[in-house]
Amino acid sequence: MALGNLATYPPAAVPQWLSLGSNSWILTATTLVMIQSVPALALFYAGMTRRRFSMNTVMMVLYSFASTFLVWTILGYSLSFYSSSIHVGGLNFLGLPLPIWNLPMFGETVYGPAGTQLNIPFLTFVMFQFAFAAITPGLMVGAIVERTNFKAWMLFSPIWIILVYAPVAYWLFAGGWLNQLGAVDYSGGYVIHMTAGYSALALAMAIGQRLPHERKIEAHNLLLTALGFGLDWMGWNGFNGGDAGGATIDAAIAVFNTNLAAAAAAITWMAIDMKVFGKSSFTGLANGAFAGLVAITPMAGMVNPSEALVTGVVTAPVVWLGLYKLLPRLRVDDALGVFPVHGIGGTVGGLLTGLMIDPAVSQYFLPGYRGALFGDWHQFLVQALAVVVVGIYSFMVSFGLAKLVGRITQLRLSRDEILQGDYAVHGETAYPELVKEKVQMRKVEKTNQKITEEK
Amino acid sequence: MALGNLATYPPAAVPQWLSLGSNSWILTATTLVMIQSVPALALFYAGMTRRRFSMNTVMMVLYSFASTFLVWTILGYSLSFYSSSIHVGGLNFLGLPLPIWNLPMFGETVYGPAGTQLNIPFLTFVMFQFAFAAITPGLMVGAIVERTNFKAWMLFSPIWIILVYAPVAYWLFAGGWLNQLGAVDYSGGYVIHMTAGYSALALAMAIGQRLPHERKIEAHNLLLTALGFGLDWMGWNGFNGGDAGGATIDAAIAVFNTNLAAAAAAITWMAIDMKVFGKSSFTGLANGAFAGLVAITPMAGMVNPSEALVTGVVTAPVVWLGLYKLLPRLRVDDALGVFPVHGIGGTVGGLLTGLMIDPAVSQYFLPGYRGALFGDWHQFLVQALAVVVVGIYSFMVSFGLAKLVGRITQLRLSRDEILQGDYAVHGETAYPELVKEKVQMRKVEKTNQKITEEK
Amino acid sequence: MALGNLATYPPAAVPQWLSLGSNSWILTATTLVMIQSVPALALFYAGMTRRRFSMNTVMMVLYSFASTFLVWTILGYSLSFYSSSIHVGGLNFLGLPLPIWNLPMFGETVYGPAGTQLNIPFLTFVMFQFAFAAITPGLMVGAIVERTNFKAWMLFSPIWIILVYAPVAYWLFAGGWLNQLGAVDYSGGYVIHMTAGYSALALAMAIGQRLPHERKIEAHNLLLTALGFGLDWMGWNGFNGGDAGGATIDAAIAVFNTNLAAAAAAITWMAIDMKVFGKSSFTGLANGAFAGLVAITPMAGMVNPSEALVTGVVTAPVVWLGLYKLLPRLRVDDALGVFPVHGIGGTVGGLLTGLMIDPAVSQYFLPGYRGALFGDWHQFLVQALAVVVVGIYSFMVSFGLAKLVGRITQLRLSRDEILQGDYAVHGETAYPELVKEKVQMRKVEKTNQKITEEK
Repeated sequence: MALGNLATYPPAAVPQWLSLGSNSWILTATTLVMIQSVPALALFYAGMTRRRFSMNTVMMVLYSFASTFLVWTILGYSLSFYSSSIHVGGLNFLGLPLPIWNLPMFGETVYGPAGTQLNIPFLTFVMFQFAFAAITPGLMVGAIVERTNFKAWMLFSPIWIILVYAPVAYWLFAGGWLNQLGAVDYSGGYVIHMTAGYSALALAMAIGQRLPHERKIEAHNLLLTALGFGLDWMGWNGFNGGDAGGATIDAAIAVFNTNLAAAAAAITWMAIDMKVFGKSSFTGLANGAFAGLVAITPMAGMVNPSEALVTGVVTAPVVWLGLYKLLPRLRVDDALGVFPVHGIGGTVGGLLTGLMIDPAVSQYFLPGYRGALFGDWHQFLVQALAVVVVGIYSFMVSFGLAKLVGRITQLRLSRDEILQGDYAVHGETAYPELVKEKVQMRKVEKTNQKITEEK
Repeated sequence: MALGNLATYPPAAVPQWLSLGSNSWILTATTLVMIQSVPALALFYAGMTRRRFSMNTVMMVLYSFASTFLVWTILGYSLSFYSSSIHVGGLNFLGLPLPIWNLPMFGETVYGPAGTQLNIPFLTFVMFQFAFAAITPGLMVGAIVERTNFKAWMLFSPIWIILVYAPVAYWLFAGGWLNQLGAVDYSGGYVIHMTAGYSALALAMAIGQRLPHERKIEAHNLLLTALGFGLDWMGWNGFNGGDAGGATIDAAIAVFNTNLAAAAAAITWMAIDMKVFGKSSFTGLANGAFAGLVAITPMAGMVNPSEALVTGVVTAPVVWLGLYKLLPRLRVDDALGVFPVHGIGGTVGGLLTGLMIDPAVSQYFLPGYRGALFGDWHQFLVQALAVVVVGIYSFMVSFGLAKLVGRITQLRLSRDEILQGDYAVHGETAYPELVKEKVQMRKVEKTNQKITEEK
Repeated sequence: MALGNLATYPPAAVPQWLSLGSNSWILTATTLVMIQSVPALALFYAGMTRRRFSMNTVMMVLYSFASTFLVWTILGYSLSFYSSSIHVGGLNFLGLPLPIWNLPMFGETVYGPAGTQLNIPFLTFVMFQFAFAAITPGLMVGAIVERTNFKAWMLFSPIWIILVYAPVAYWLFAGGWLNQLGAVDYSGGYVIHMTAGYSALALAMAIGQRLPHERKIEAHNLLLTALGFGLDWMGWNGFNGGDAGGATIDAAIAVFNTNLAAAAAAITWMAIDMKVFGKSSFTGLANGAFAGLVAITPMAGMVNPSEALVTGVVTAPVVWLGLYKLLPRLRVDDALGVFPVHGIGGTVGGLLTGLMIDPAVSQYFLPGYRGALFGDWHQFLVQALAVVVVGIYSFMVSFGLAKLVGRITQLRLSRDEILQGDYAVHGETAYPELVKEKVQMRKVEKTNQKITEEK
């Protein structure tokens, strides 16, 4: 804390341009998004894996989180958000690669080729955007659990930030070419969820399937999954609520729409499950909520609540079909359904954005923008173009990168390593006391057996 | 995030009336209260249930949360907070039922028959109030775990929001008749905790008891309960801290008093446990803290810290007696003690509010209000009246509603379903890997037995 | 919530001096720091203990948290932050012991002998500082799990707040003698981490070792530890981000540096583990991140990001050596490595602070301060002096206090109590259903054995 010889904040710390209220909200939103990764996403996935791979699942998410921060600091942020380095015919494709300390880092937020300003400190913006970058490779982990070589992931994850995340962020968040053509992505339906979903599909293809007798989910603790789910849902208040750039009216709109889409999709999914299976389940409710959350993300602060409700109701059945009908036919072992939820959910959201951007709401964020339902079919076309571009780009580059990493180190663990799990990979298990007890029990059993046999 | 071609926020997003700082705090407080439900309350209860009902416990809380959001959007908010629809002799009883999109939803917060204004966006206020509505049916779940028919809950929970929550909220939060008579409820001691506590008692009576051999708590994982407890306690910073309506001095006062009452009640409960049982336990400390938190809620921003301390010290023994002496005699199977903690705790808090509202503090929230100890016995009488009204109303309507739902579908699971638990209800268990291992172990044991017997 | 007859906030609640944005951020930061204790730290430690001591571990952290709030209210805050009571030759050593209600508690924050002002409510500041005081004894718990007498802890913890925490806070947070000599502690590298680390060492010495066959960690659930770890890391956004005293530029700088040091130290520790053990582990990554977080704490808002990166990279190997090379030779059973992480990590951070305070950054917090690398060797010397003073003072007073408590009650549980664990201490276990199942299984096994033997 401050010192006794200091009278309040130095004037330099509270310049005229600074909105203390907006800075408060964006720092809070940043923290919420960070919590969405660690611990929430890590535990959401770990709870759904077999016990012997739960630690590895956590580690993959944690490593991505920590390594992304280093990449982000050294060149990731500036590639994604600084003045354009690659531009063709007036279109901007990528920022200059510079470490944070070469940027005007103690001033106001100014970003992108057009020098967009926000009344918050530059480092607040860098942190907030980091939190988005960090969760994206983490999301992919769900597709490749229970067989991926951790060393391959150590290479893949940070390079992916540079090759896939940074360019797409530039195109849709910073004022790059897709923005220049008119496409928008309020909070990362494209930049986070579509890149993660399509890259996860590519990765799962490149890495191959789980062991033949383990190709179904065998969750070891769905209460941990429920914990991760809850923090992820509530963290979305920061994820979408922070993208207004401040504590504006639009932040409130985005938070409201986000929860409405989530609730509507969750209840819709439950209804489908009850119709089809006769019962509703937690994993169903969770998948439904996530489908709604993903789909509302590209438009959260640009539509009316009634449109958010539609988004939830429409997206849930599409993702349901993706999970139960499409995915099983793809012969790709996307273990926890990352592609349906984030890839398909993101695609649906991206297209609905082009239809539903409501000028009565976009006035609080991007005055003048309107979707096809409000008369502007061009908006729908550029959103659809962005869907195609981001989907294909993410899939292709991720597949290529995975193959490249596969030439440096094995993408998969060996069969023996897979059978052993965490201990083989990290020399550590999630439940050491339990493991010890099991070992002791087996000894006792063997002794008993011997005695019985000798009799 | 915003686009490169946009220079900072549109003016419409940051109108003159908007306090960015208060909006930041109420959005944060909202998120904290939402976390109190999901995942905190869900896991707090699930950890205390038998393993085979833990998933169902989570699902009951999650379903209430999601369904309340839909009800809230479509008519719940306006019933609870909009212009009066039912009024008798100048007294207001209920708001008009309108969907959110028929209200002036992008403007400033204006609510209740008197048009109270707050310098935050309307949707921020709607979200904040949603979070309170959503947790209330969730609280009742603890009373009826391990035997309730999920389909009955699917009907009961949303209708309860309309029949019980909305009216009581109107009476005590929006300026309805109890407010008009002078009663106050700072943050939901009546509207949330008393309604939940008395309704839980009615529900538990209507649904009946757990299986005869299962009428004691058999917690399967108290560390999950500790997790939920921790997030619930800290989330109370938002629960009570948000009810100042902004980041005012009163928010700080409410947060301080809340934690002081909680700490005092926790330590007091531990002392009683040590005196009576010779030992202090986690469940004791947790029940104590919750008792203090519940009791301080109706007055958190209207009393002095010394009065908050008294509240904690006084409430703990009363709730302790309620849990260990009264509840066992009621022959109602309130499984996890919801009535003592929230019903009795809320009652004690409501009465103490009438005694202790301190004019030196209420000046930061409701200038002029003072409790009986500061000379205004009328304040005590209206608070006592509100206790009687809310307790009886909640109990009666909830009991009636439960009976009504019981005519549409069974309130209880069948004995076979209860014995099977989560799998029977949701086709899913919390620990699938464990279940599989147990099944395999039983097979091995049976084989061994056969071999032994054949010998 | 407010009432219908009230038009917006009373003017008294939003005085001129109040920054609503800063109040919002500090209330949020306070909540984050509180979450770092309960549930995060409680579960971080409980996951690493044996199952039969996990509840006791949680209870020790919870009790410290609750009891510290009472101590803080009654005299702890004013001892730590109020006008000086003990002063020698112009140097201030301690505040006056007064309960909160004897202080000007509804006004602006004014603290320390120099009357430093912040534009937030006094009670916000008291809460924020409470959260720091509360976590500090909690941190020590890791050193003494699985053998400490809970009753001894009930005495030790609150007295420690008065004898160790309050004075050191006065010296380095409030403008006491070490501040007067020029030493700074941005966010508690000395006041929290060093006091906890050196006191933990003293306590572990005084209490003695775990049972001979249990002197290695036998974690029962590292996913709970991962959960606690995640919330602790992210909570550090509040821990360091709140010490700017408001939502200033410096808050953003502190948050950024904090995460950079954490990420750098985590990756560095992983690299060392891979070099030495051939594998990286979760506990390694977690220890690394904590080492970085602890070390950046005393300087988080006063250095450049490049210096934060150096802090992470330098601290990780030093703490690694402390954990794997120094601690095993100390013959002190610091069970979970509190001394290396917090004591050594804090020491390294304190010294680096003296080297690296960067005038280009300290201008946003303490204009004019600069470390030895920027030409002011005096700064390094006073930081080193503070390291020596705080280390020795904490160790000595904690050891003496432990011995004193040992004269009133046993510091250790008896061997029988240790073998029984939670049930002996609290009459409660973390997994009652599991315990019951085990008891039943043993009965079945015994019966089977008898049958076999009789045959």
